[in-house]
Amino acid sequence: MDDGPVQIREVAPADLELICRHREEMFRDAGSDERTLVRMTRHFREWLEPRLNDGSYSGFILSVGEQPVAGIGLMLIDWPPHPLHPEQSQRGYILNLFVEPEHRRRGLAVRLMRLAEAEFVRRGVRYEVLHATDKGRPLYRKLGWDSTAEMAKMTRGGGLPDSGHC
Amino acid sequence: MDDGPVQIREVAPADLELICRHREEMFRDAGSDERTLVRMTRHFREWLEPRLNDGSYSGFILSVGEQPVAGIGLMLIDWPPHPLHPEQSQRGYILNLFVEPEHRRRGLAVRLMRLAEAEFVRRGVRYEVLHATDKGRPLYRKLGWDSTAEMAKMTRGGGLPDSGHC
Repeated sequence: MDDGPVQIREVAPADLELICRHREEMFRDAGSDERTLVRMTRHFREWLEPRLNDGSYSGFILSVGEQPVAGIGLMLIDWPPHPLHPEQSQRGYILNLFVEPEHRRRGLAVRLMRLAEAEFVRRGVRYEVLHATDKGRPLYRKLGWDSTAEMAKMTRGGGLPDSGHC
Repeated sequence: MDDGPVQIREVAPADLELICRHREEMFRDAGSDERTLVRMTRHFREWLEPRLNDGSYSGFILSVGEQPVAGIGLMLIDWPPHPLHPEQSQRGYILNLFVEPEHRRRGLAVRLMRLAEAEFVRRGVRYEVLHATDKGRPLYRKLGWDSTAEMAKMTRGGGLPDSGHC
């Protein structure tokens, strides 16, 4: 589907529900179950609202003819200075990359990733991270991203995971 | 070397230099160069001091006969609710696990990991993460940790990495 030029804008507080939907669809695509998604979105909305308002969650929305068709989110996360960023105590984090199914395979995800990366360069961020779904990984590799040595565990109180560690 | 019983205590603000040294030795072991380590430690000390004072960085020190021989650090990191922790907006993070070379191979790293994991259970944290060095990975696997899908990239302004993504 290609019905007009793609408009780019920054996310705004009014995008709260749109971003919640993008995050939910992204994890649904990756195999999360509906019950978990409902619980997550309820809490994610509460988490997101103040961060959208104060700008600590930012990002971009792509639209075609007024209709939002894709989005990406950015945060800075507090991180101890590390050999990969010895003089910085933050990492850029990219999340909630989602493209509506009927708008895939026309490069929108790459455009969003380039916007996000350029934004981190603009902010002087040295090191950026994300968590890939299986579907997204080949794209990130093409853009120069590498796997890290992160490991994770559900705590003994935490129960079984509902989906993979993405 | 086994010269007495092992004492356990929580980290305290007076451990600032000890923790800086543990972090530096850990990354030296993993192959970081000296120039990078000096820069990192200078900034890490500044980052750590207020967090040790307010308790947002915590952890444990093992000592033998008054002599600290191993340590581990813990933080809570702000994280959007996720299918693996749908009702929590934080992840436990374990860092700076270090055992003095002459005290290795007597189970101190496992003791520290169990203390850290128990502390996160006590705090009700559902999901915990760490970054493994190649040396540490087999131990974490034995303790039930799995690799995640994290990916990373130096930004275009960031220059070349000095060591692997650990």
